[in-house]
Amino acid sequence: MVSEHKTADVSFESLLRIFTVPEGPDSTLTKIDEELSRNLNKFLREHIVAEEKPLREIEKDFSNAAIPEQPEFVSDHTQHLLDTLVSHSVHTSAPSFIGHMTSALPYFLMPLSKIMIALNQNLVKIETSKAFTPLERQVLGMLHRLIYHRDDAFYSQWMHSANHSLGAFCSGGTIANITALWVARNNALRATGDFKGVEKEGLFKAMKHYGYEGLAVLVSERGHYSLKKAADVLGIGQEGLVAIKTGSDNRICPKALKQKITELKAQNIKPFAVIGVAGTTETGSIDPLEEMAQICAEEDCHFHIDAAWGGATLMSNNYRHLLQGVELADSVTIDAHKQLYIPMGAGMVLFKNPDAMKSIEHHAQYILRKGSKDLGSHTLEGSRSGMAMLVYAAMHIISRPGYELLIDQSIEKAKYFASLITQQDDFELVSEPELCLLTYRYIPAHVRQSLEQANAKQKAELNELLNDLTKFIQKRQRETGKSFVSRTRLNPNQWDRLNTIVFRVVLANPLTGRDILSTVLEEQREIAQTAPNLMARIEKLVKQINA
Amino acid sequence: MVSEHKTADVSFESLLRIFTVPEGPDSTLTKIDEELSRNLNKFLREHIVAEEKPLREIEKDFSNAAIPEQPEFVSDHTQHLLDTLVSHSVHTSAPSFIGHMTSALPYFLMPLSKIMIALNQNLVKIETSKAFTPLERQVLGMLHRLIYHRDDAFYSQWMHSANHSLGAFCSGGTIANITALWVARNNALRATGDFKGVEKEGLFKAMKHYGYEGLAVLVSERGHYSLKKAADVLGIGQEGLVAIKTGSDNRICPKALKQKITELKAQNIKPFAVIGVAGTTETGSIDPLEEMAQICAEEDCHFHIDAAWGGATLMSNNYRHLLQGVELADSVTIDAHKQLYIPMGAGMVLFKNPDAMKSIEHHAQYILRKGSKDLGSHTLEGSRSGMAMLVYAAMHIISRPGYELLIDQSIEKAKYFASLITQQDDFELVSEPELCLLTYRYIPAHVRQSLEQANAKQKAELNELLNDLTKFIQKRQRETGKSFVSRTRLNPNQWDRLNTIVFRVVLANPLTGRDILSTVLEEQREIAQTAPNLMARIEKLVKQINA
Repeated sequence: MVSEHKTADVSFESLLRIFTVPEGPDSTLTKIDEELSRNLNKFLREHIVAEEKPLREIEKDFSNAAIPEQPEFVSDHTQHLLDTLVSHSVHTSAPSFIGHMTSALPYFLMPLSKIMIALNQNLVKIETSKAFTPLERQVLGMLHRLIYHRDDAFYSQWMHSANHSLGAFCSGGTIANITALWVARNNALRATGDFKGVEKEGLFKAMKHYGYEGLAVLVSERGHYSLKKAADVLGIGQEGLVAIKTGSDNRICPKALKQKITELKAQNIKPFAVIGVAGTTETGSIDPLEEMAQICAEEDCHFHIDAAWGGATLMSNNYRHLLQGVELADSVTIDAHKQLYIPMGAGMVLFKNPDAMKSIEHHAQYILRKGSKDLGSHTLEGSRSGMAMLVYAAMHIISRPGYELLIDQSIEKAKYFASLITQQDDFELVSEPELCLLTYRYIPAHVRQSLEQANAKQKAELNELLNDLTKFIQKRQRETGKSFVSRTRLNPNQWDRLNTIVFRVVLANPLTGRDILSTVLEEQREIAQTAPNLMARIEKLVKQINA
Repeated sequence: MVSEHKTADVSFESLLRIFTVPEGPDSTLTKIDEELSRNLNKFLREHIVAEEKPLREIEKDFSNAAIPEQPEFVSDHTQHLLDTLVSHSVHTSAPSFIGHMTSALPYFLMPLSKIMIALNQNLVKIETSKAFTPLERQVLGMLHRLIYHRDDAFYSQWMHSANHSLGAFCSGGTIANITALWVARNNALRATGDFKGVEKEGLFKAMKHYGYEGLAVLVSERGHYSLKKAADVLGIGQEGLVAIKTGSDNRICPKALKQKITELKAQNIKPFAVIGVAGTTETGSIDPLEEMAQICAEEDCHFHIDAAWGGATLMSNNYRHLLQGVELADSVTIDAHKQLYIPMGAGMVLFKNPDAMKSIEHHAQYILRKGSKDLGSHTLEGSRSGMAMLVYAAMHIISRPGYELLIDQSIEKAKYFASLITQQDDFELVSEPELCLLTYRYIPAHVRQSLEQANAKQKAELNELLNDLTKFIQKRQRETGKSFVSRTRLNPNQWDRLNTIVFRVVLANPLTGRDILSTVLEEQREIAQTAPNLMARIEKLVKQINA
């Protein structure tokens, strides 16, 4: 409890005190707050990724399932959190953390997020959010306009309309994608004749009514793993998520897409949605959106674009063209907590047509009454925080040209890193950056040279050994904690489409300097030398190849 | 931008500055932070619910869909947020805000939430969360133990097991309920013989394989509206959510439940899940959980309990018995952002069996690899914040006995308010509080007296007029902004199960004093007198009745 006494006590008076806003700068809590800020700022300034401590060790601090019977002082518990939690968390904001889509955040979001926490609005309904409701609708309007470029008249007609919705704010891209496919499924299996719609009668009756043998959603083989979850949840089944092959550029082959749709239709399977990926998670590639939109129009499919990560590129007038065709989508997912630099928990899905979400609209007696402007009538989630205010604030403080600079520098940094990798004898660029994401692997120079002589079997064997080496380097680098790159598995042409483990780098953090990129390569090179067994096996194979 | 210059500029240097952690107490941002804290504290100390300003007016401030082309200074924008957003938000923490499940929060969560925002961990995987992962698993373990009371050996075996999960942390009760039903559906339609399971082959093939004509989830007619959403999303259809009638105590009738299951089975419809409600949203009633568990065991149904709101009652050894039978559930939803007093965005679902979530397990190449302890392999959501740390902190700082006091005082306050209402000539208690929630309505004393003489038609007519009066009072009270109660629609026996609009009060805020309860009634009484037309129509009807 917040108490001046030496031992924390449990009394209703002390409980009332913890719910009371402290007055004045000398209160215990104000002091704890200041001390905590100093500690966090110190932590954020440390340029390492993580302390070297195995998870098993950390788990010991979090092993008690009993809820404490004794209260702790706030000051004591804060120190406990700093020692056991903060010091063993990951510096996702470190300039050398270049392995995932988390980055340093604009620091002004720290004070502003206090507004969100302190006011604790619930956006499900106006009664618990008031001004936050129009604010969220405006944020959705801004993103809608960024994608679809409609005119002022459009937004003044629809943005605040009680019975319409330009999209939904949600906790992240997964819920955004599920929402888009939910809307698409319900529109494809809508009420006709005696049938009351899939939302009322369910999928089994819908299939019998429409006479389909199956449903399908088509996406490139590089589609995000969450789409499988979506297909499962929505009752379509993971097998209903049909993977279309990609070219060597990791983009979907439109011909293969068209052909698969024809095949499915011939089997009486309804391909009700096609998903274009604008920034694949593993290679950062952008599908040919215009061609896909054309196919969807011809085939009467809902066209969804998963731009959870790449959508922020629309902020840059210099690179917006990479997503050409995005404005033709029926729906688009964008995560503000990726390259819009907002804290975790800010996903959005936007719909071209303000009527689209009617297929999932729902009401209740005590809230979300018909005709109300309660946001909850068009969201998969119920109670939600006022996270949209941070997107709103960042849009105003950074502004579009500010975001443009951030996007541009990230893409240019990735191009620089790609050229740096290409210049090395002992590294191979596996996928070129389209946005700020690329993949590569380490191969000792003489091993690379031997590749030309290798037969298919030897190449496959070498690939396996290099996979093990890449895994070893990536794990060791992560554990050492100075820097972090992630890894994934691709099937590149240059490796005969074998399973190929690669390093994966995302360069969203504006604080990541070019010197760090050189250091990361140097560290990987050094770690490779600490795997003598693996290196010896590679040497042995190289000798066989060269023999 | 954070800049000393007079006009905000857009340059890469100024952008780098906003991503840089400020040093020292004299930085501009530190000053803005302190000023903002003072402003927010002042706001939180004001004991009103909301400024009187119509939504249409507020919308004018949030009408521009264009993303700004000019950056704003942080200080200017903060002031703008205070003026347009904060001042027109809802004081959900005000002691007189007794209409929904939001309450004042323990103030220590304000400084501690900075840890969550500043570290910006992503709990989907260990690589972006490290110590936050075991912390979240411990929080789930604590809630699991609170429900199921398993021994230390159980938790040391399962809590940190890579291939098991005691539950899922999620953004709220809706996602928690969907997760529970998703698990239940997939377990009911699991792989057998040639069939690969509903998760792979989808619902249509699953139904054909199992030979069912339909699926059903059974819940009392007081079940939360989100369950309809869940039935829709999961492909069961809203009609597959079968409402079972309740008694006059708003609890499900076990006989009716049993009978409906028998009927459904006779129609070859599979009732795969039954949901018990532990704290209905509208009346706070708790279903007879033990009897329901017995029926589910006999009928081989997944037994889920939606204790999103009432689950916190388990913290009190004095009232825990109200949820007797909760430990028999296969899964339980609890929202920490309700009566565990955590900010918005903290839902949980717990599963009795650490194997249960295998039916929705999923993996990906670059994260969630098999054998990893990444939390994302068992959640509907993907990227998620470290919100669990606030639950962890509150458990330690408040402790179980502290929560017990909070729960006890809320229930006792509701009992007091119920007796206060009963003592009034001109108010009628409609539903008794089981927890800290009750409903009532306003009826002038002489109107009540005339009720005995009224025939069915007159009573129905009177009921409609009183409905209008209740709506009028509730709206007016909300708009005036001094206090807030919500309203809902019930079908109470004393009103011949007619649609009856009632005031709905939730007394979770420990700062709500008894004086406020008296004032709320007084205000409602006064507002009633400002509806002369309605009152005149009521008078006219009363004269007819008494004639």
